[in-house]
Amino acid sequence: MHKSKLAGFIIDCRTDDLHGAAHFWSEALGMPMEALPGAEGKKYVRLRDKTGQLHIEVQSVSHDSRVHLDIETDNIDAEVSRLQALGAVVVDHIDSWCVMQAPTGQRFCVVRKDSEDFARRANNW
Amino acid sequence: MHKSKLAGFIIDCRTDDLHGAAHFWSEALGMPMEALPGAEGKKYVRLRDKTGQLHIEVQSVSHDSRVHLDIETDNIDAEVSRLQALGAVVVDHIDSWCVMQAPTGQRFCVVRKDSEDFARRANNW
Repeated sequence: MHKSKLAGFIIDCRTDDLHGAAHFWSEALGMPMEALPGAEGKKYVRLRDKTGQLHIEVQSVSHDSRVHLDIETDNIDAEVSRLQALGAVVVDHIDSWCVMQAPTGQRFCVVRKDSEDFARRANNW
Repeated sequence: MHKSKLAGFIIDCRTDDLHGAAHFWSEALGMPMEALPGAEGKKYVRLRDKTGQLHIEVQSVSHDSRVHLDIETDNIDAEVSRLQALGAVVVDHIDSWCVMQAPTGQRFCVVRKDSEDFARRANNW
């Protein structure tokens, strides 16, 4: 048995101006920006969801701008297999996460669990 | 003064098989499907977020598949003006809502407030 749930979403922005992109989305959504340390901070800015329910980041990307969903899990291999059985396909493995494509065309990522209340809120499969 | 907040997101699927698309996303995210009444039900299926924090729908569309964010507000005109001042542009007015495009390229919608706890959770502008 493994668990998974929606972690949140990433706002992918085709820009070299990560701070400007994050500033727009921070103001638009009314969510404060939170700088991330080290190399991660050059590519991502976190937006703080006051409800604490969602992990939201603005990412600087080289592909077209979009929004993508992240699914968090305690077992990446098992979750990827479950999603493949539903019709999704693996696009790429990057570091600790897996990029997949839904049968309806959207890209999304399967990532390691990170929510504080993951065990309580995640679905059991 | 007016208020707004992130309402949730819509999973736009380029498909004639709305039920099949909603089935995938319902299973992928572990969120039960909820049929909507009348004409709305031919284009949208709601996915029930157990935390009650987000409004999530799968939508059948004719453009490319994507995910878009919805911002809910108690004053659409004031919110659209606020977002224009941040650099977003109006793409279209449809029924009660407004389609906008962020300076970073993503489309999003400004919709009428619908959350039960909107007054408490929304940002004041």
